[in-house]
Amino acid sequence: MMRILIKDLKENEEAKISGFAETIRNTKYMIFVVLRDLSGEIQVSIDKKTMESMVQDLEKIIAGSVLSFTGKMVKSEYVKQGGKEFIPESVEVLSSSDALPLEETANIDTRMDYRWLDLRSKKNTLIFKVQTALVNAMRECLIKKDFIEIHTPKLIATASESGSEVFEVKYFDRPAYLAQSPQFYKQMAMASGFERIFEVAPAFRAENSNTNRHTTEFTSFDVEISYIKDYTEVMDLEEEILVAGLTKVKELYGEEIKEVFGKEVIVPKRPFPRLKLADLYQELAKNYDYQIPDYDIGDMNAEAENLTGKYAIDKYGHEFIFITDFAKTKRAFYHMRKNDIPEGYDLIWRGTEITTGAQREHRYQILKKQAEEKGLGKDVEFYLEFFKYGCPPHGGFAIGIDRLTMLLLGLPSLKETMFLFRGPNRLTP
Amino acid sequence: MMRILIKDLKENEEAKISGFAETIRNTKYMIFVVLRDLSGEIQVSIDKKTMESMVQDLEKIIAGSVLSFTGKMVKSEYVKQGGKEFIPESVEVLSSSDALPLEETANIDTRMDYRWLDLRSKKNTLIFKVQTALVNAMRECLIKKDFIEIHTPKLIATASESGSEVFEVKYFDRPAYLAQSPQFYKQMAMASGFERIFEVAPAFRAENSNTNRHTTEFTSFDVEISYIKDYTEVMDLEEEILVAGLTKVKELYGEEIKEVFGKEVIVPKRPFPRLKLADLYQELAKNYDYQIPDYDIGDMNAEAENLTGKYAIDKYGHEFIFITDFAKTKRAFYHMRKNDIPEGYDLIWRGTEITTGAQREHRYQILKKQAEEKGLGKDVEFYLEFFKYGCPPHGGFAIGIDRLTMLLLGLPSLKETMFLFRGPNRLTP
Repeated sequence: MMRILIKDLKENEEAKISGFAETIRNTKYMIFVVLRDLSGEIQVSIDKKTMESMVQDLEKIIAGSVLSFTGKMVKSEYVKQGGKEFIPESVEVLSSSDALPLEETANIDTRMDYRWLDLRSKKNTLIFKVQTALVNAMRECLIKKDFIEIHTPKLIATASESGSEVFEVKYFDRPAYLAQSPQFYKQMAMASGFERIFEVAPAFRAENSNTNRHTTEFTSFDVEISYIKDYTEVMDLEEEILVAGLTKVKELYGEEIKEVFGKEVIVPKRPFPRLKLADLYQELAKNYDYQIPDYDIGDMNAEAENLTGKYAIDKYGHEFIFITDFAKTKRAFYHMRKNDIPEGYDLIWRGTEITTGAQREHRYQILKKQAEEKGLGKDVEFYLEFFKYGCPPHGGFAIGIDRLTMLLLGLPSLKETMFLFRGPNRLTP
Repeated sequence: MMRILIKDLKENEEAKISGFAETIRNTKYMIFVVLRDLSGEIQVSIDKKTMESMVQDLEKIIAGSVLSFTGKMVKSEYVKQGGKEFIPESVEVLSSSDALPLEETANIDTRMDYRWLDLRSKKNTLIFKVQTALVNAMRECLIKKDFIEIHTPKLIATASESGSEVFEVKYFDRPAYLAQSPQFYKQMAMASGFERIFEVAPAFRAENSNTNRHTTEFTSFDVEISYIKDYTEVMDLEEEILVAGLTKVKELYGEEIKEVFGKEVIVPKRPFPRLKLADLYQELAKNYDYQIPDYDIGDMNAEAENLTGKYAIDKYGHEFIFITDFAKTKRAFYHMRKNDIPEGYDLIWRGTEITTGAQREHRYQILKKQAEEKGLGKDVEFYLEFFKYGCPPHGGFAIGIDRLTMLLLGLPSLKETMFLFRGPNRLTP
């Protein structure tokens, strides 16, 4: 018999279900197994008197084991959750578990040690279902617009953008480095006439910080487009894919997210509010008596981001806000500038920056000068070459999908939202 | 005015087009520019007498430059290609090119040096449009079946599966390694109850070989499913996604592929032929007088794969064929065995292996024994842990999408099919 999902069980119809035994309760007359598969859970009720051989099988195993039951689902007023139970005729033990080493109350580090058990919970599988829907809807939105998906190399010859915080790889008889982002290569695709590209891929940062917002490896959703008028077209596109993603998530999982995470999925209205950094500073001072510290002038910091999220809600009733006109000293050399101001933005969602986007400088001489100003020499030479033989005006952005999922579900840490978190002290399992 | 794509031009309608000047031909009375964007190309014809300022702009630049023209498309019997031309009223030089360093006749290594220019050709952009459609259709097929997309870490603590051919990373004060495949982690997802997952991500191989089939980094499409009856369900699923992918490619690009690459896209009939290795050996001997060398007995080699592709066509009129029942000494330790024979397969397409798939051994004690038999110790300890606390029966497969695209389009080398090829002597651009 083909196995079916617990959610697809129909009353009184013979069926086979398979899943993990979440709990096994052995009472005087009955054994109760809560069986869970990816679609849901059901109580399996076994009458010990009539089901002797099944009882023998079940008394040998403990929670965590994987079982298949054949039988029927029936309605039952005695069962609290769902008002139904499964009455089996036979059981098959597909895999038996050792005593589970992970308590529900375990701290986050122990949970990471046993991440494969930690992920079994309804809450944790939901995170990845939601992320799948979110990312796929964003991708679909681009595919419909004839975007090309590229896969750029993660092994690179030079230490890349910033020259710091990059992992070194032993590459045969020479060093190589792990790409911190596909930035240079997605711009290369523009010089190749690809016009509209995206990539979803790992990015690596050798940052030795142990915070809830830092990781050494994350998944980046990168987009780049050619023939833009200015960077407002980049913001427009980012709005569009975020709305597409959140619309899909709300449709598929809105109710479940509310129930499990207590979070409302809000599909944002377009256009998102857009504000210049200098004006933002004034508003933060006026409304929240907040003054940006001197060393952060021209930029944001975590506290400013947080208050900016609050301001977006208070002023616009909106969870998102674009901040523009950062100082050139605080932005990457490849951002195009107009009147010495970078043609780019940060996007803040729920008080956290989720994106930096910009029009890029595509004119070789200006780009070279801007790189030199930042003290970047040999490491970016190969990249500057991309702009010598014609390159359309272009711009783009990147979104860390782990962080996006974290904010969407209101989770406290990237550790919760990544399949397997990686940090300076965390390379396992 | 908004820029439109060349393919969307309508006769006699005012429009703005942008793209690369593929050629610029300056004659006595006229300048002819062949302008190409991602959608196609058109001849732009400029009358030198009436368009003096435009002529001044165009005489300053050379092929490779990026231009916008505003004007109208008209039908013209004098234009050979397409029977239409664009009559511009104004031009804007978006980016001017230095003399192009890449000749059309350049060898593959020079082309790789200037890959961003090499990729500008109609042929090369088509490769990536096709790959986008192929991979996306495969992914869509899985998303519709409620698969979860995962992103597993590429930074790992131990040298993984084979213990060899793995890149070492300087990870703060200790070594880390680059994952050769997500194999262990996609199986972990099964132990976590994720049931059906896929991942599209880079995989790394420190193989010091310079062939057309080897690369140090490629993109792997990985799939894993739980609660299978046996590995035939894995083959069924692989058939299904390949049919979905090829159907989409044929629909969108079948004609263009025929025209540009001279290749017919054939949507394969299901089920694909399936043959045991021992029977294959007999058939190869009988039909092509081929004897597998002693050291390859129990396995395939390149020549056998090639003949197997021929046999599949000759015997079944099919481009694909599954070969099963390899020797356990030639297969990974984690393949489940039945009567000592691995429960897995290779899939051959057009004479090349594109996949290894299998049911995995999910029973801890047996898996541990099989790992020890292969001399794998400490490096797989963390992986064995995944099977201690219950794990459903499961199986899966992986497809290298670069190789898949290469075979689809009949390209001679992975260098042609990867956005940026990586090999022992190739880390740039």
